[in-house]
Amino acid sequence: MHPWGKWGRSFVEYGTKAARAALADAGLDWCAVRSVVGADTVRGGYPGYVAGATFARALGWQGARVTSVYAACASGAQAIGTARAQILSGLADVVLVVGADAAPKGFFAPAGGDRPDDPDWLRFRLLGATNPAYFGLYARRRMALYGDTADDFAQVKVKNAAAGAVNPYARYRKPVTAQEVAASAVVADPLRLLDICATSDGAAALVLTSMDFARRHGAADPVRIRAVSTATPQYPRTVLDLPDIATDSAAAVPEPATGFRASIARTAYEEAGIGPEDLSLAEVYDLSTALELEWYEDLGLCGAGEGAGLLRDGVTALGGRLPVNASGGLSSFGEAVPAQAIAQVCELTWQLRGAAGGRQVPGARVGMTANQGLFGHGSAVVAVR
Amino acid sequence: MHPWGKWGRSFVEYGTKAARAALADAGLDWCAVRSVVGADTVRGGYPGYVAGATFARALGWQGARVTSVYAACASGAQAIGTARAQILSGLADVVLVVGADAAPKGFFAPAGGDRPDDPDWLRFRLLGATNPAYFGLYARRRMALYGDTADDFAQVKVKNAAAGAVNPYARYRKPVTAQEVAASAVVADPLRLLDICATSDGAAALVLTSMDFARRHGAADPVRIRAVSTATPQYPRTVLDLPDIATDSAAAVPEPATGFRASIARTAYEEAGIGPEDLSLAEVYDLSTALELEWYEDLGLCGAGEGAGLLRDGVTALGGRLPVNASGGLSSFGEAVPAQAIAQVCELTWQLRGAAGGRQVPGARVGMTANQGLFGHGSAVVAVR
Repeated sequence: MHPWGKWGRSFVEYGTKAARAALADAGLDWCAVRSVVGADTVRGGYPGYVAGATFARALGWQGARVTSVYAACASGAQAIGTARAQILSGLADVVLVVGADAAPKGFFAPAGGDRPDDPDWLRFRLLGATNPAYFGLYARRRMALYGDTADDFAQVKVKNAAAGAVNPYARYRKPVTAQEVAASAVVADPLRLLDICATSDGAAALVLTSMDFARRHGAADPVRIRAVSTATPQYPRTVLDLPDIATDSAAAVPEPATGFRASIARTAYEEAGIGPEDLSLAEVYDLSTALELEWYEDLGLCGAGEGAGLLRDGVTALGGRLPVNASGGLSSFGEAVPAQAIAQVCELTWQLRGAAGGRQVPGARVGMTANQGLFGHGSAVVAVR
Repeated sequence: MHPWGKWGRSFVEYGTKAARAALADAGLDWCAVRSVVGADTVRGGYPGYVAGATFARALGWQGARVTSVYAACASGAQAIGTARAQILSGLADVVLVVGADAAPKGFFAPAGGDRPDDPDWLRFRLLGATNPAYFGLYARRRMALYGDTADDFAQVKVKNAAAGAVNPYARYRKPVTAQEVAASAVVADPLRLLDICATSDGAAALVLTSMDFARRHGAADPVRIRAVSTATPQYPRTVLDLPDIATDSAAAVPEPATGFRASIARTAYEEAGIGPEDLSLAEVYDLSTALELEWYEDLGLCGAGEGAGLLRDGVTALGGRLPVNASGGLSSFGEAVPAQAIAQVCELTWQLRGAAGGRQVPGARVGMTANQGLFGHGSAVVAVR
């Protein structure tokens, strides 16, 4: 991993450093890698669109197969899923997965050009709705439906900042109080600046191998990927996913039993053959403090509307029964889009190895990540040891 | 497939039409598809970058897994390779692969912004070298090394135009004479307008399934994908690949035995367990007429410098021993980048089924595609029946 921050350099540099760190961790020479899967950096122009080839070139062309994928915030998990399919199909033994970003300052903006059939263009052009505008609506909905309070949201920040303070890769590494959250500027009512994640530079990389390869190379009990879910939504639904301003579907499908985020998690649980009761920890996509509470419910850690209670009981804090965002989460990292879902799995790996230092979850055996991105993208990864 | 042309509409429309045609060909309902792999349209903004999700949404969200890949001209083959890995790994039974583009008028230009570490930006900024400038250099090199003539190049166009004239999906469907090529404007000496492929709108789609699924659904003897090569270059080399203006490598690797294009083909032959002597036909990336002759040699259809002889002997024409670009090739289609490598495999499929109409290669059993794109991307697919 490359530390998150605002470094002002190229995503290629961040990703190459993260890739070299992953190779060193695996004890492998770059030339042993037979496939590279990159998660694309869309704002970087061509080199960003071809992340796999860009990192293969930066590390030195050596003939390996390359793949470059993009799935907004789920890009990193899509890269992991693609690498995993290559390994499980026998097409590759050792795959390097890399994602890196150099984020612009401030809110994310849509790509240039007029695209009336692009929901991302439409929401900016017709509504002027930035991402935090959606986060605010989701938070307000929780307050109306479940009685969540602004202080509940602030307590998510307090919890995540405490964890991030002991993570050397995090961008923000100091404790935050609920008073500091309440004193920060309103961005999208009811959310304040410290309720919302920043945009960051950063990079993460993983080496995935077949079990045979791992054992031959002395890793008798490696962390294993048990499931990668990259499900898409089903309709009809009444809660709009960012960046949509309406829901529709050309396919006549029955009303789904669960919402999109819950279906992402369910697909992963089914593939892994586990349930929420088996989890030691989870890394979820806390674009805002309130969204972290949504994930508790969508992952089945508690029932609908019970997220704030779980938080208040300390269950999801470091030292609790089921720590969520032991890494510090997006709250402490900020978004580096193509790297984020890979970074979540890096955190699970360190935790499952017992190598997470001051933020270690004692006896961690099963971890899950979850995130959601634009355009019907979402992902969940289950890792076990 | 959606016919190639300049239609002035959205790539989403082209791709959706191609996808529906592929589903109809397979006799499958859209809801039977459990994974969609899209080849990205980079110029289309966000919906283009997330082609998999875009087509899943246009066909109607129904929960299928999505993946979106980009590899310049090899994007379509990377999509096929990704779908194939999902099937071989048991993660999916039925995968829809779609690529579509709406190309701008004239030469391709680089993405906006200043990127001094991007070879594509460098060659435009420092040299003003468009793609045809490279094509011209490659053609001139053949003339110097092998004695190829401008008329040899023109004969490639004559051959491909004759094939394209009987392909209902081709954009250019009339025969061309060598005199017409010689009378067309010089674009990049020694190449003339009719030596160089156009940029087009178009779309192609395929349904890939496991063999079990195909047999359960009545396809006792389907066309099978036997290999997908997406190798990357090795260095040192002395012939520059578009868009590079220098060669370099950070990895200390020995000098490769073959050039990049030949290594793409070799990887595919090895994976398929066949050699050039087994081919019934080939679809190669004739960005220019002269480049088609390079491919003859890189695919091992003849020795170095013997490409023009093979052409003059009629071996690679319809009715010859080993027709190349029976579809009419890029010469008749023009480039629709993310669709092109998929369209090549569509042509193999029709040929291997004996359903290619007036351009049918009699008794075709084994076909190969090959292409090369920017940034170290290249691909070859072997299909058999």
